[in-house]
Amino acid sequence: MKQLIDVIQSVRLSDDGEALVILDQTLLPGQKVYEELRKPENVWDAIVQLKVRGAPAIGIAAAYGVYLAVKHSPANTMDEVRHTFLKSKAYLASSRPTAVNLFWALNRMEARFEQLFNHSNGIEAVIAGLREEAKAIQLEDEQVCEAIGEYALTLLEPGFGILTHCNAGTIATAKYGTALAPIYLGQQKGYNFNVFADETRPLLQGARLTAWELSEANVDVTLICDNMASIVMSEGKIQAVLVGCDRVAANGDTANKIGTSGVAILAKHYGIPFYVCAPTSTIDFECQTGQEIVIEERSAEEITSKWYTEPMAPKNVKTYNPAFDVTDHSLITAIVTEKGIFKADQLHELREQ
Amino acid sequence: MKQLIDVIQSVRLSDDGEALVILDQTLLPGQKVYEELRKPENVWDAIVQLKVRGAPAIGIAAAYGVYLAVKHSPANTMDEVRHTFLKSKAYLASSRPTAVNLFWALNRMEARFEQLFNHSNGIEAVIAGLREEAKAIQLEDEQVCEAIGEYALTLLEPGFGILTHCNAGTIATAKYGTALAPIYLGQQKGYNFNVFADETRPLLQGARLTAWELSEANVDVTLICDNMASIVMSEGKIQAVLVGCDRVAANGDTANKIGTSGVAILAKHYGIPFYVCAPTSTIDFECQTGQEIVIEERSAEEITSKWYTEPMAPKNVKTYNPAFDVTDHSLITAIVTEKGIFKADQLHELREQ
Repeated sequence: MKQLIDVIQSVRLSDDGEALVILDQTLLPGQKVYEELRKPENVWDAIVQLKVRGAPAIGIAAAYGVYLAVKHSPANTMDEVRHTFLKSKAYLASSRPTAVNLFWALNRMEARFEQLFNHSNGIEAVIAGLREEAKAIQLEDEQVCEAIGEYALTLLEPGFGILTHCNAGTIATAKYGTALAPIYLGQQKGYNFNVFADETRPLLQGARLTAWELSEANVDVTLICDNMASIVMSEGKIQAVLVGCDRVAANGDTANKIGTSGVAILAKHYGIPFYVCAPTSTIDFECQTGQEIVIEERSAEEITSKWYTEPMAPKNVKTYNPAFDVTDHSLITAIVTEKGIFKADQLHELREQ
Repeated sequence: MKQLIDVIQSVRLSDDGEALVILDQTLLPGQKVYEELRKPENVWDAIVQLKVRGAPAIGIAAAYGVYLAVKHSPANTMDEVRHTFLKSKAYLASSRPTAVNLFWALNRMEARFEQLFNHSNGIEAVIAGLREEAKAIQLEDEQVCEAIGEYALTLLEPGFGILTHCNAGTIATAKYGTALAPIYLGQQKGYNFNVFADETRPLLQGARLTAWELSEANVDVTLICDNMASIVMSEGKIQAVLVGCDRVAANGDTANKIGTSGVAILAKHYGIPFYVCAPTSTIDFECQTGQEIVIEERSAEEITSKWYTEPMAPKNVKTYNPAFDVTDHSLITAIVTEKGIFKADQLHELREQ
């Protein structure tokens, strides 16, 4: 297990600092292909096409994206560099609307840029500073995920059946994952969890990614279709639900992969605790409730024909394909962050820190 | 619309009485292929492979199956005919364990057989009697479905958003369907329902069959993934849930396609009525509660690789693939039968009839 999460890095800077190296998650589990991205356009494409996915990993990729934009820019003056930075920042921010980490990471890069711009010793110093900041974001994400894992593990007992939705694993982050972090840490301690992974239609992140990375780490994982969550809960197989998230509003409402709100309602019905694992960078205090969160809608083709040998629905059938939904804070037992475990109504304590 | 349900018959006897003609539902929506089945083995295969599916349609197919067994048997004596009948009955009963209509139809055929055996004027009279009985089962199913549709329609209002799961449509029955019957009848009256069809993993009956037959009938249908039921309910798009079923226990617990119990829990959470549409032949008074219902488990391959261009899960991943789940009677607003609309605790009235 340790081997897997030490070996697999879904987003990292190439050794020469010239490119972002990503694991193409659209090809998993069949092929493990790494791709080098040199331009912001490549990074944008990779995010839109979901080659890079997972809220924290998207943030890291975007941070490296603005660094690469400046690094590979022909700009000769500081003003040109600033123009390049801001243009690529706005461009990368347009890649996906729901995950707040994307904007958080880009804003952090901008703050560092402005500092460098105001005090710099030239373009090379700006480039070096941006590289350092992106690396710091990556390293901190790893530390944050490990801390989330440690806190979440205190909520679990050996032998627990754990249900998870989508992929909030090591490949969705710098390392460890969010929802899967306690599972990896528990595995190291011999907790022998039985994990149930929702396949997570339409993009099958649970089947292709979660089942894959947990299998690789020798975690006991059972793949189910999304609509089987109710029966496994009713059969007493689940003692806790762990999910990641893309954005938490100030009141604790949480946007995560489509279907998460349904899992939370089932968990409440069956009396099973439902935990959201979230870096504090995912909390958007500007957003008062989940109603303000923009939900990305994606193409019909993801439902009707993607992955299939032939279309599985009548031609031109109407579809509705929201990529996320909002789980009401009343359904969330606790939000586990790197700074501790919070009830929805305690989140404001983090704001005051 | 009228055209569609008049034209499409998923199970019928061939004009010469020599074969059961089925619409191969595994090839929909891409191809509309009818297949002639002459032997019980062919009928058994068609049921197991889900070429024929839907609890009422399975019952009709099995009834014709035992008729064909006797019809094509080389038996020369009445005792040999009886042996053939009972053997094929037991064989066809082994095709699928959950739908009670299968056993109901086969038992009805046996009762008729015994009557014919005891009073017959020879083998040809037995064959003619079995044919008549199977046709009667088919015709009655059509009448039953129409009556269910009329009763269910009284629960709906023009413009309702209706969510359905799996396929309980015209192709799952002799005609009209169960859960879809009120939608077809409402369409004739200009009710303009907005139907949301869960795709229904792993076998995609919602995408391949429900979206197809409703589209063909010009009903406004929107295809969603199973895990999107929560968001469409939360957005106020659904005013009623209609599902079919495979078996109703005496206390109203209902076995239906995997995922139905989850939809019922969501409907309760959002305050949306949840109706089960069931011929009374689906009620199993011998079965006290849902806990006694045998749930069929199917192969891993249906989840990991069926329909796909390549496997969508890691090789040898553990899966759990129950084909049905049980919806607790407390979650069911009403059960709509051909004899009227019943609350779970009123079902006993039907037993006393």
